[in-house]
Amino acid sequence: MKHFLSVKDVPDLSALVKEALAQKQNPFGNKHLGQNKTLGLLFFNASLRTRLSTQKAAQNLGMEVMVMNVTQDSWGLEMQEGAVMNGDKAEHVKEGAAVIGQYCDIIGVRSFAGLTDKEKDCQDEVISQFVKYAGVPIVSLESALRHPLQSLTDVITIEEYKTKPRPKVVLTWAPHPKALPQAVPNSFSEWMNVANVDFIITHPEGYELDTEFTGKARITYNQKEAFEGADFIYAKNWSSYQQYGQIVSKDPAWTVNAEKMKLTNKAKFMHCLPVRRNVVVMDEVLDSPESIVIPQAGNRVWAAQAVLKEILTSLPGK
Amino acid sequence: MKHFLSVKDVPDLSALVKEALAQKQNPFGNKHLGQNKTLGLLFFNASLRTRLSTQKAAQNLGMEVMVMNVTQDSWGLEMQEGAVMNGDKAEHVKEGAAVIGQYCDIIGVRSFAGLTDKEKDCQDEVISQFVKYAGVPIVSLESALRHPLQSLTDVITIEEYKTKPRPKVVLTWAPHPKALPQAVPNSFSEWMNVANVDFIITHPEGYELDTEFTGKARITYNQKEAFEGADFIYAKNWSSYQQYGQIVSKDPAWTVNAEKMKLTNKAKFMHCLPVRRNVVVMDEVLDSPESIVIPQAGNRVWAAQAVLKEILTSLPGK
Amino acid sequence: MKHFLSVKDVPDLSALVKEALAQKQNPFGNKHLGQNKTLGLLFFNASLRTRLSTQKAAQNLGMEVMVMNVTQDSWGLEMQEGAVMNGDKAEHVKEGAAVIGQYCDIIGVRSFAGLTDKEKDCQDEVISQFVKYAGVPIVSLESALRHPLQSLTDVITIEEYKTKPRPKVVLTWAPHPKALPQAVPNSFSEWMNVANVDFIITHPEGYELDTEFTGKARITYNQKEAFEGADFIYAKNWSSYQQYGQIVSKDPAWTVNAEKMKLTNKAKFMHCLPVRRNVVVMDEVLDSPESIVIPQAGNRVWAAQAVLKEILTSLPGK
Repeated sequence: MKHFLSVKDVPDLSALVKEALAQKQNPFGNKHLGQNKTLGLLFFNASLRTRLSTQKAAQNLGMEVMVMNVTQDSWGLEMQEGAVMNGDKAEHVKEGAAVIGQYCDIIGVRSFAGLTDKEKDCQDEVISQFVKYAGVPIVSLESALRHPLQSLTDVITIEEYKTKPRPKVVLTWAPHPKALPQAVPNSFSEWMNVANVDFIITHPEGYELDTEFTGKARITYNQKEAFEGADFIYAKNWSSYQQYGQIVSKDPAWTVNAEKMKLTNKAKFMHCLPVRRNVVVMDEVLDSPESIVIPQAGNRVWAAQAVLKEILTSLPGK
Repeated sequence: MKHFLSVKDVPDLSALVKEALAQKQNPFGNKHLGQNKTLGLLFFNASLRTRLSTQKAAQNLGMEVMVMNVTQDSWGLEMQEGAVMNGDKAEHVKEGAAVIGQYCDIIGVRSFAGLTDKEKDCQDEVISQFVKYAGVPIVSLESALRHPLQSLTDVITIEEYKTKPRPKVVLTWAPHPKALPQAVPNSFSEWMNVANVDFIITHPEGYELDTEFTGKARITYNQKEAFEGADFIYAKNWSSYQQYGQIVSKDPAWTVNAEKMKLTNKAKFMHCLPVRRNVVVMDEVLDSPESIVIPQAGNRVWAAQAVLKEILTSLPGK
Repeated sequence: MKHFLSVKDVPDLSALVKEALAQKQNPFGNKHLGQNKTLGLLFFNASLRTRLSTQKAAQNLGMEVMVMNVTQDSWGLEMQEGAVMNGDKAEHVKEGAAVIGQYCDIIGVRSFAGLTDKEKDCQDEVISQFVKYAGVPIVSLESALRHPLQSLTDVITIEEYKTKPRPKVVLTWAPHPKALPQAVPNSFSEWMNVANVDFIITHPEGYELDTEFTGKARITYNQKEAFEGADFIYAKNWSSYQQYGQIVSKDPAWTVNAEKMKLTNKAKFMHCLPVRRNVVVMDEVLDSPESIVIPQAGNRVWAAQAVLKEILTSLPGK
C-alpha cells in the first residue's frame, strides 16, 4: 500500500479486515515493524478519536509519533499554484509538505471541507497536495471528501457484529444544528459498496450525496421503509451537496429513536462520533444494548494499525 | 489503587510516601511496568508542572503518553445528563470519556472550578463523569475540588525536609489579583489531616474553606500567631467559599515576607506554583535558602510516579 | 558543550559538521546515548521545521521529548527582575525555568524578537533567563538575536554541496510583506565568518545588520555585483535594525529570480523557510534544480542531532 486515501487503495478489503482483527488479538506483535520510523500527524481541524487512535496504533507498532495542530503550532499554508504570497499565508504547501516528508516516514493529514467553495472541496486540495509534494506515504485522517479510516473501522465493526453473511446496512441522515461535511457518508457509501452487505441510504429530499460515492446504492426518502429488517443502522448528519454546504432540513422526524429501531431486525446502532444526543439520536437508543458506538470507536485503533502495518511493510528498504 | 482522586484513595499514606522516595532514588527501576500501557492526559485548563511532571513520571515507568488540550485540540464536551445537544457542545462526556477509555489504560484529567456556580463546582462534575464513564482508572490532575498529586507532593516534601517527627505546618492565605479555586488549599488540608503534622490554617475572615476539607484543623485569623514556631509555611491564595468565587480581600498585610518568616522556627517556605512574586510572597523569601519551592515542584514527578505505579500494578491482568 | 546559543559555543566547527554528517549516515547508531534522558521543547512562537526536526533528532538519540506551546498550554511568564506580579503574568521565569529544569535534562527554547523594543530584544531576554535559571543545558530554537541550529544546518549544507574548497556565499535581503526579525541573517553571518567561505552580504540601504554579527563580512548595496560568480545564494528578508523593526523597503527589484541566478556560478539557492513564493524568490528559482531548500531543511535533523549528542556526552555523570 502506497497511500491510504480511499477504498481504491485497498486491493483486498477482506484481507485488510482480517489483518485488523488479527492486530486486535495481538496488539504488540509487530512492534519491531515501526522501529526507527516516525509518523507525523497533521491536524488542520479538531480531532479526538482520530488523533488518539492513530497515535496509539502507531505506538503499538513501535513507531514514534509527532503530532502537530498545523494552524496553531505552525504557519498558514498556501495551496494555490503560482501564488504571489503577499498575504497571510507564510508557507507554500510545496515546501511545507516536502519538509515534513524529510522528517516523517508516513504522514497523516486531516483537513475538512470548508463547505463554501464546492469546486475547491471537490478537488480535495490539501490531501492531494500532500500526496503530490510530501514524497512519503500519506494517510487520510479525513479529507474534504472522505474519511477512510472511519470507513474501514465501520467495515471491521460490521464484520464483528453481523449475525448473517450479508447483513442489511442502512445509512440514515439525521438532523443537526450545524452544517457538516459529506466526508463520512461519502466514504461509508464507497466502502459499503465494496463490502459484502445489502446497503441502503435514506435521507430527506435535497440531501442526495454525490453519485461518485453512492454508486449503485439504493436510496429512499422513506426512513421507516429503510429501517425495516435492517441489521445495522448507521446514523449521520451531512449538509446538502446540491445546495452546497446548506442545511435544507432540520426535521426532527428524522432523529433515530427507539420506536424506529423496533422496525429493524434488532439492528445494532452505529455512529462515527461525536454525536449530538437527542438531536441525531435519542438517549434511549445510545444507552441501549444495541448501541455499539463505543466498541466501534475502539476499533479505530485496529483499522489504523492494519493500514500503518501495510504501509510500513511497503516502505522502500523493507 | 483504582482511581486517584483524593487522600481517601490512599489506604496507607506513609507507604505511598516511601514508595515515592524509593522511585526518586531509582527513577528507571520499574520501566517494565508500563510497557505497552498508555496514559492519556486531558487538559481542560492550562498546565505546566502537572503536564510535564506526570508525562515524565509515566515515561520513567515505560508508558506511552498522549497529551490533549481538550478544548483546543478536540470538541467541547456536554456534561449534562439528558441534554438536547443543539448548542455549541459537539460531544457528550458519556461518549467522550468512554472513547478515550478505549485508547488509554489510565486517564489523567484536569478541570478547574468555574467559580461561578457553587453547586456545580461542588459536584466536581468533569472528573466525576470521567470516573463514571471512562471504564479505566482516572487520576486527578486537579479537579474543581482537589489537587491530590500536589498534596501528595507536599507530604513527600515535608517528609524530606522535616527536622522533627511532628512538624508544625501552616497553610496561610495570601493576596492575589485574580479569583482562584479552593482546590489546592482544600486538598492540602485534607492530606495534612491524615499526615503526622501539627496543622494550622490562617486566613482573613470570609475565607473559611469548606469544613469537609479542613475537618479538625485549627483555624486562626491571626497570621502572626500562626507563624510562631512554624516548621513549614505553605502560602496560597484562594477565593471565598462562602461568597462563592469572590475576592473579599486583597489585603497586602497578608503577603508573606522576611519579617514574618522570622517568627517561625526557621520554617521552610512552600508554594504549589505558579506564584505571583511580591504579591503572594516577597522576593526576599522566595530567593532565600528557606524557600524549597523548586525541589517541591521537582517532587511532582515522584508523587505521580508512585501513583501511576500503584495503579499499573492494580490493572486487570497484572 | 554546555549550552548551544551561538557559534561561540562551538569549539571546533569543522568537527561538529563532520559529526552531523556522520549522524546522517547512521541516524540510529547512538540511540543508547539518550536513554532515560528527556528533552523539553518550549515554544513561545510558531514552529514547523524546528519543532519536528529537533524532536526527530532527539528520538533518533533515544531521548524522550516533551513539547510545550508555552503561552497556549501554560501560563504567561514574567521576565522582569523584582516585578510586582499584579498583572497578567502568572509565573516568573525564575520559577518557570527552574521547574522545567527539574523535569528535563536539556531544554530547547524558541522566543522571537518582539521588534518593538530594541534594547529588550538586544538583551535576548527569554533565552538568557532560561540559561540563568533552568540549571540544565539550553539549546536555542531561535532567540531574539540568533538561530544557531539553522546556521549550523546551513554550514552542513554548504559543506555537502560545495564544489570548491572555499565557495563564494551571498546572503541577500529580499522583500517581504511583514516585518521579520534579524535572527537568521545575524546568525548566518556569524557562522559564515567562522566557516571557510568567501562571504558577502547584499541589501538595500537602511538594512544594515548589527556589526556584532556581520563582523568582517563584505557588504554591498549592489545585489547584481554580489551575485556575480556566487556558488551559494542565501535569500532572507529582515526588518531594519537602525529604524528598529521597520520595513524601510519592499522593493520588488530585490526578489531573487532566474535572471539574477544567471549571474552566478550555477549557484545553489538556499533559504531557511518558510519562504514567500514570488515575493522573496520566484517559482522559477525555487522549482529549479539549483534550489536545495528541501534537503537544506532535511539537514535540520542532523544539525540538531549533532548538537544534542555533544550536550548528552557532556552531561554530568556521563
